[in-house]
Amino acid sequence: MTFANVGTLGTQPGRRDEVVAILTRRNTELETAGCLLYEVGVDDDEPDTVFVVELWTSAEAHRASLQLDSVRASIAEAMPLLSGHMSGSRFTVTGSPLRA
Amino acid sequence: MTFANVGTLGTQPGRRDEVVAILTRRNTELETAGCLLYEVGVDDDEPDTVFVVELWTSAEAHRASLQLDSVRASIAEAMPLLSGHMSGSRFTVTGSPLRA
Repeated sequence: MTFANVGTLGTQPGRRDEVVAILTRRNTELETAGCLLYEVGVDDDEPDTVFVVELWTSAEAHRASLQLDSVRASIAEAMPLLSGHMSGSRFTVTGSPLRA
Repeated sequence: MTFANVGTLGTQPGRRDEVVAILTRRNTELETAGCLLYEVGVDDDEPDTVFVVELWTSAEAHRASLQLDSVRASIAEAMPLLSGHMSGSRFTVTGSPLRA
């Protein structure tokens, strides 16, 4: 069952684009780990927030990815740039109007 | 610029799966209107909530889609099943670690 992880990361003032750069750095391990989609974005009305939408082959695949060295290194690099404010949802995808 | 619309729809108690059925009904007009991704999901820990993640070719394409007859009909059909509780984020996609 496709698993979705959707959320926001608050950043230290003015550090948003550095966090975006870390999160969007090409990582070929993610596909291998079961990542289907990983989109990072911004909204200039909320200038210290990074938005993330992820789709994974399963919740287990997502959880396991957090142990990858490359992912752990990115988290460690981003952590000092974050404010600690986070929000998010996790859900199981049931369908799409784009598919039969 | 790819536009993301991510959110939750609260439903009347026990009506979640009816809302999911409406939102996941095949709609070929959405692609034509610029919809790149439209995933609908659930989380049994929040049994009266429907989760939606949408990606569109632009914010304008998303806005225009709300005027399509098929979309207006779906909204009208779902509306009586909703609680009125909604949350969401809209943002501009800046990149993905899955792409170069």
